[in-house]
Amino acid sequence: MKAVQYRSVGTAPEVVTVPRPAPGPGQVLLKVTAAGVCHSDIAVMSRPAESLGFPLPLTLGHEGAGTVAALGEGVSGLALGDSVAVYGPWGCGTCPMCAQGKENYCTRAAELGIRPPGLGAPGAIAEYMVVDDPRHLVPLGGLDPVTAVPLTDAGLTPYHAIKTSLPKLTPGSTAVVIGTGGLGHVAIQLLRALTPARVIALDVTEEKLALAREVGAHEAVLSDGAAAGRVRELTGGLGAQAVFDFVGAPPTVATASACAAVEADVTLVGIGGGAAPVGFGTTPFDAAFRAPYWGSRAELIEVLDLARSGVIDVHVETYALDDAPTAYEHLHEGRVHGRAVILPNG
Amino acid sequence: MKAVQYRSVGTAPEVVTVPRPAPGPGQVLLKVTAAGVCHSDIAVMSRPAESLGFPLPLTLGHEGAGTVAALGEGVSGLALGDSVAVYGPWGCGTCPMCAQGKENYCTRAAELGIRPPGLGAPGAIAEYMVVDDPRHLVPLGGLDPVTAVPLTDAGLTPYHAIKTSLPKLTPGSTAVVIGTGGLGHVAIQLLRALTPARVIALDVTEEKLALAREVGAHEAVLSDGAAAGRVRELTGGLGAQAVFDFVGAPPTVATASACAAVEADVTLVGIGGGAAPVGFGTTPFDAAFRAPYWGSRAELIEVLDLARSGVIDVHVETYALDDAPTAYEHLHEGRVHGRAVILPNG
Amino acid sequence: MKAVQYRSVGTAPEVVTVPRPAPGPGQVLLKVTAAGVCHSDIAVMSRPAESLGFPLPLTLGHEGAGTVAALGEGVSGLALGDSVAVYGPWGCGTCPMCAQGKENYCTRAAELGIRPPGLGAPGAIAEYMVVDDPRHLVPLGGLDPVTAVPLTDAGLTPYHAIKTSLPKLTPGSTAVVIGTGGLGHVAIQLLRALTPARVIALDVTEEKLALAREVGAHEAVLSDGAAAGRVRELTGGLGAQAVFDFVGAPPTVATASACAAVEADVTLVGIGGGAAPVGFGTTPFDAAFRAPYWGSRAELIEVLDLARSGVIDVHVETYALDDAPTAYEHLHEGRVHGRAVILPNG
Amino acid sequence: MKAVQYRSVGTAPEVVTVPRPAPGPGQVLLKVTAAGVCHSDIAVMSRPAESLGFPLPLTLGHEGAGTVAALGEGVSGLALGDSVAVYGPWGCGTCPMCAQGKENYCTRAAELGIRPPGLGAPGAIAEYMVVDDPRHLVPLGGLDPVTAVPLTDAGLTPYHAIKTSLPKLTPGSTAVVIGTGGLGHVAIQLLRALTPARVIALDVTEEKLALAREVGAHEAVLSDGAAAGRVRELTGGLGAQAVFDFVGAPPTVATASACAAVEADVTLVGIGGGAAPVGFGTTPFDAAFRAPYWGSRAELIEVLDLARSGVIDVHVETYALDDAPTAYEHLHEGRVHGRAVILPNG
Repeated sequence: MKAVQYRSVGTAPEVVTVPRPAPGPGQVLLKVTAAGVCHSDIAVMSRPAESLGFPLPLTLGHEGAGTVAALGEGVSGLALGDSVAVYGPWGCGTCPMCAQGKENYCTRAAELGIRPPGLGAPGAIAEYMVVDDPRHLVPLGGLDPVTAVPLTDAGLTPYHAIKTSLPKLTPGSTAVVIGTGGLGHVAIQLLRALTPARVIALDVTEEKLALAREVGAHEAVLSDGAAAGRVRELTGGLGAQAVFDFVGAPPTVATASACAAVEADVTLVGIGGGAAPVGFGTTPFDAAFRAPYWGSRAELIEVLDLARSGVIDVHVETYALDDAPTAYEHLHEGRVHGRAVILPNG
Repeated sequence: MKAVQYRSVGTAPEVVTVPRPAPGPGQVLLKVTAAGVCHSDIAVMSRPAESLGFPLPLTLGHEGAGTVAALGEGVSGLALGDSVAVYGPWGCGTCPMCAQGKENYCTRAAELGIRPPGLGAPGAIAEYMVVDDPRHLVPLGGLDPVTAVPLTDAGLTPYHAIKTSLPKLTPGSTAVVIGTGGLGHVAIQLLRALTPARVIALDVTEEKLALAREVGAHEAVLSDGAAAGRVRELTGGLGAQAVFDFVGAPPTVATASACAAVEADVTLVGIGGGAAPVGFGTTPFDAAFRAPYWGSRAELIEVLDLARSGVIDVHVETYALDDAPTAYEHLHEGRVHGRAVILPNG
Repeated sequence: MKAVQYRSVGTAPEVVTVPRPAPGPGQVLLKVTAAGVCHSDIAVMSRPAESLGFPLPLTLGHEGAGTVAALGEGVSGLALGDSVAVYGPWGCGTCPMCAQGKENYCTRAAELGIRPPGLGAPGAIAEYMVVDDPRHLVPLGGLDPVTAVPLTDAGLTPYHAIKTSLPKLTPGSTAVVIGTGGLGHVAIQLLRALTPARVIALDVTEEKLALAREVGAHEAVLSDGAAAGRVRELTGGLGAQAVFDFVGAPPTVATASACAAVEADVTLVGIGGGAAPVGFGTTPFDAAFRAPYWGSRAELIEVLDLARSGVIDVHVETYALDDAPTAYEHLHEGRVHGRAVILPNG
Repeated sequence: MKAVQYRSVGTAPEVVTVPRPAPGPGQVLLKVTAAGVCHSDIAVMSRPAESLGFPLPLTLGHEGAGTVAALGEGVSGLALGDSVAVYGPWGCGTCPMCAQGKENYCTRAAELGIRPPGLGAPGAIAEYMVVDDPRHLVPLGGLDPVTAVPLTDAGLTPYHAIKTSLPKLTPGSTAVVIGTGGLGHVAIQLLRALTPARVIALDVTEEKLALAREVGAHEAVLSDGAAAGRVRELTGGLGAQAVFDFVGAPPTVATASACAAVEADVTLVGIGGGAAPVGFGTTPFDAAFRAPYWGSRAELIEVLDLARSGVIDVHVETYALDDAPTAYEHLHEGRVHGRAVILPNG
């Protein structure tokens, strides 16, 4: 079958032909219907060899959807042809975190060498992929795999971040979203669907702010040194009860911190290398700063349920499998609007 | 191998010889070190054929512990000889409840014909048992299987009930435990270890009240028509913030309801057939009445962690496998003090 | 000044002239802009003398809004002319419940003889009213008092009920609202604004179901013996994660119970005299049944904040003070559409 | 009457004679039974004039207890002679924070010029003090004012910090307490009374570690550059689920951060000027860093309830009012063991 692989450090992804895998006992083979292309793949491909953490070649793609093509021995509860999404942050399944479905925080994954598909295990940008356990599959239930597949990361990650803050997003509260791209434009829609909070979006161009308004932001503010002051003005001086930074670079993290109200949640999602200093006298009283990672199994089910109710509109651009290297180029050049999705059997 | 089976409706359990099972793909074979005997087995054995819900013969025992004797194909993360406890309320592993580890509330178990060991699937009162998936095993980590095995139900069930009420059991609060037997005497210890609440135990004999005090109850009150009034006296008229009824018979349920404070939790665990009428003007404002069942995977991990810290003392009486039928007789006659535990390989 | 009073047991409310009250130390005098008329007033007026609980005559009206007309000694933080709503369930202000703003559950109100305005203390259906403490006032902040005043009870009561259930109303969940009148039609709007749940409304006429759909219900179902079955059908057999019964009569309570999913919240708000039997084997596992009362101070602030964002549309009919007795007649006869509001200075 | 005042910037506190205050409408006069001396007073007295934030002279003492000596007009619910503790972080009483009793986070205090007694308003180190509202008083209910008075800050502050983290402190979890002085030695006792967590105390001398063990720490570790590594060893590499830093200096904050597990709470209470950088890749996934301040009204009630059950032992040294300046000297020199308490009428 064809697969898109990262084959050696520093090179571009390539389309290659590899043997079609067979599912072992307890595993499931998917015929891939759609696979998302993500900035974090590019981040991984820019690491030096010594910090890669897994051997090459690697079949890319940690956002995947497919139809069940074969069941390994001992697998039940699934039928051939079922249309499913792949839960990506695989864990051991039995540690205290995994026992709650928080496999993204598995305490034994490193020790046992378990890695997500496309980030160590063979990924979704291929005609077929093997999923290690049926618990990592969620039925799509009528959702179009092409628009649903980005929800497995670009939907799940902001959903997880937002879910933690729901108790703070009561009527009268304000949520700030910094960065309105792949994850941020989904976050705005999630906040509108899940909370009565006023949503203020911050980004660096008027074009992006227009998109933010279009997907539901009540206010859209240029993300510069004055942005936090503008958020304080809009909130009667109190600041926002929740701030989500999907950029995570030093200036956005500083803005995020400066926007926060007493008892706020400040959630740093973006991998831009910024860090906020937190301390008594430095940050508002009881404002909680955290940097989460991906989401839980139940949260993916919830994101897909929410999509099924029609309130999330993910902008996607599709590419054939052979064009996946081009998709990565476009993404790197900032030329992808919304999310790039590969159709390996399209 | 030897196993203790319920073979036909209305008969007593019997010791029989059956083939030693082999683990299929994804399954685990345990050599059983200890298995608990529970009142609910007797309740099942007193049902008529039409409401049994599964075919006979049935190997009994839904509280089990053992050492890993063989791994089915595709199983990893476990080693031969590992000492483990069995999580009993098996579910499908993938539905929204199971995705959070709440397999006790699996939404698909009935449809898929999944039943707990000893309550439909072959149970733990046998020399060997098959566990359907490694996620249903929790390492004992040094705990003695004999005193730990009752925790898989008689510990997990009250733990789950109490955990829901922890936010209400602040300093100054009161918890009432009705019925200080198998589950209740563990509940008293759990409440003392987990909360600063004052614990009031209710039971019907002075001997049982003495045991309740011994395991940590601050107050012990005879469970009769005056008991609820006594609880109100002890709480300055306000009632208790949490009431746990491990009997569940009509008079104890009435007492439970009459003990409750505004915003209390009233948790009806016992299967005694009682029901509390809940309504505006009938029950204290915002007092929440519920009837839970068993517990989640993470909660079993937590119960065993708590036991490991030495704060739970389960009273057990041990029996050889050949004497399991006698254990059931003793239990039925009310002659077991604490929990009866079978040692199939002892 | 003019006031509408309930003067002796069994008689109709009357418009009378009484001295204009003066605020004592720590109190606030309001010139009333709007006052709501509520079914529970009629319930109080139908009680026999011995269960009334307070002396007559009583100035009616527990939903009130006004402008600050005079400040008692020692009152600060308010200015003459401020437009405010009255928080009705007055408590002592210092007990453990009041210390969290849950004055509706004050532990000392009975002992200290504290009663809500219009339900023991002089109420809002008068040209002026005295509020015992500035903490019982919430600024209207631009809201029209006429449409806002019902929110102090008909908004706050369902808001409180719903807020408890928010963690269960995740994407994919279902909420059932039984009774779509004064409180119920607000509840539907609150559920839509606060949660991603699918809302199913139940009522007894097609006309009421049409209103339910108009204010946001996804489904509207005739409330009869088949209703619970229909809810199960609509939820794939699972039932609803939250059920709110604003009627509370025996048949609706039975329906509420029969609609509930495992781990559901069943909230019985209506004072129709029904009660649901809760017990093991009787109700779904861990479904919590409760009967709340009114709401907290912070919740009233939140309801008004939500109204300010424009997502709640309360249907009101206005009456002059002299016509308040007529408003009570209309209400009793079921001829009020939405909420009757008195304009004492209109 | 005599009072201890901070009279001009840079000078030591002095015993002076001032007029005995009279309670205005809505206020309460206390005859002070005990008043605590706190490090934060010294911090305030070391500020330059321009950052002081209130005029001098200032009667010191933000930890106070007394008996009710006179009631202002309009005050009810209290009797002369009642023994009470003072809730210190006064707020407006009506904003959204105060409506939940979180007056420590009042949104209007600055605007309205409201300041805590001893930190702007006349404090407790005097024969009499005026409390602005009865809601700021909590009955001592038999507690000795001398040992109870430090609980109004040195108890309430760690209680508030710990209460936020209770859901994370399940069986099997670990809590780290850095700094075992005034607040820290209370925190260790609170953690033992409220949670099943293993408690690891960190401090800089063997003498302090011995005290930590004496009040309940399971482990006591020297607080140096190797401490975080030792905590990881003791937790199987996972780190602690909750870390409380009562020092808050740069090295302890670095240790706190390095101790944290995935999803941990890291709470920076001490005012030592340190700040922890929080960001993706910098801190463990979803570990929440925050810096709280004091506590809520309900939390003070809970702390005193807990003390009444006998599980908190605050070490105090008592001083006469005339010796209060000496107490401040001793505190500054590190010569106070536990908490210094002034007895103004002793």
